[in-house]
Amino acid sequence: MTTQLLRVHNFMVSQDGFGAGENQSLEHPFGDAADPAALFSWAGATASWPMRTEPGGSRGLDDYFTRDWARNIGAEIMGRNKFGPQRGPWQDHDWRGWWGEQPPFRTPVFVMTHHPRPSFTLSDTTFHFVDADPATVLARAREAAQGKDVRLGGGAITIREFLDADLVDTLHVAVSPVNLGSGSRLWESPDELLDRFHRDVVPSPSGDVMHHLFWRR
Amino acid sequence: MTTQLLRVHNFMVSQDGFGAGENQSLEHPFGDAADPAALFSWAGATASWPMRTEPGGSRGLDDYFTRDWARNIGAEIMGRNKFGPQRGPWQDHDWRGWWGEQPPFRTPVFVMTHHPRPSFTLSDTTFHFVDADPATVLARAREAAQGKDVRLGGGAITIREFLDADLVDTLHVAVSPVNLGSGSRLWESPDELLDRFHRDVVPSPSGDVMHHLFWRR
Repeated sequence: MTTQLLRVHNFMVSQDGFGAGENQSLEHPFGDAADPAALFSWAGATASWPMRTEPGGSRGLDDYFTRDWARNIGAEIMGRNKFGPQRGPWQDHDWRGWWGEQPPFRTPVFVMTHHPRPSFTLSDTTFHFVDADPATVLARAREAAQGKDVRLGGGAITIREFLDADLVDTLHVAVSPVNLGSGSRLWESPDELLDRFHRDVVPSPSGDVMHHLFWRR
Repeated sequence: MTTQLLRVHNFMVSQDGFGAGENQSLEHPFGDAADPAALFSWAGATASWPMRTEPGGSRGLDDYFTRDWARNIGAEIMGRNKFGPQRGPWQDHDWRGWWGEQPPFRTPVFVMTHHPRPSFTLSDTTFHFVDADPATVLARAREAAQGKDVRLGGGAITIREFLDADLVDTLHVAVSPVNLGSGSRLWESPDELLDRFHRDVVPSPSGDVMHHLFWRR
């Protein structure tokens, strides 16, 4: 089979369905979310978390989720709000993402924005900026992925657009027991997707989150 | 990190700890196990099961286990009893494994046997036959894996030898609710390993098996 899936991995939302709080900024990339650590701790404890900087870490169930993030991925698509805190026309081309000189993606990355800017490369990741609809961006990402799958990196608004266009094949969302009250909404309830997706729900052994695993019917 | 792990994946045992029944043969590769399908059905239903021959299949929790089987693997080690039903000196060099002309391994495979025979290649899998202790075979497999991990494919006796030599880094065993009563024993109880390993226990959404995920303390 040579199908190129569009996959969402390790996307973290609050119990009430928000991927980030309001008022995202450089200092607060998850906005008013009171405690972003509550969304991320299950993943940060695993050996394969891409942003991990020290050795060690667990290799149990949660690590299956973090290590699947890079498996057979040839490109990523992300929304501009994941790429950085600026909104509107670029004021600062020196901003090259949150991830330093060695971004974890190691593939082409397509950043969706109404304000294109020149592509650039950091280590083995190249960022492209595209002003196009989801289906068009996905077609470009698939071509760049050279037969491998494409990861949809978020944030919530971007994932929502691809879900509404029925372009997502698999979706892993870790639902945290915190409530944010407002912010970027992924869904009102995960049950919204059951008309189009199968789902497994699995509690993290960390006790912090519920893993929701969706795949297309 | 460049550690090359030794990993066991999707190894299926009965509730009473047997990986196969007695009297394994060409017709009954799992021996007297009354219903091998009861051991395998959770895996066979997934999209990524390596022996899958038709499209479709689930992409939920169980598929994370089957699709991790090939991720970052550069070599496999297996016991001779996994390779085929013959015992003692080879009577039939035409036997080239259970898997047909396109074995799913797609790496070098090291078959442990007291009766070496010449290596041979089928598609992108090469089988080598080695008469050596676990540590020596692992060193050869690591070199062949060129920086990737090594999979320990079974059967139960072979996994037990590597566990006793403390060479296994991660171990995924799917415990089926059937009792076999006799056969190749992996353990008396999974709790035996808790002095040396962390463990997560996760029920399969299929309802058939419990996944035991061990990683080294």
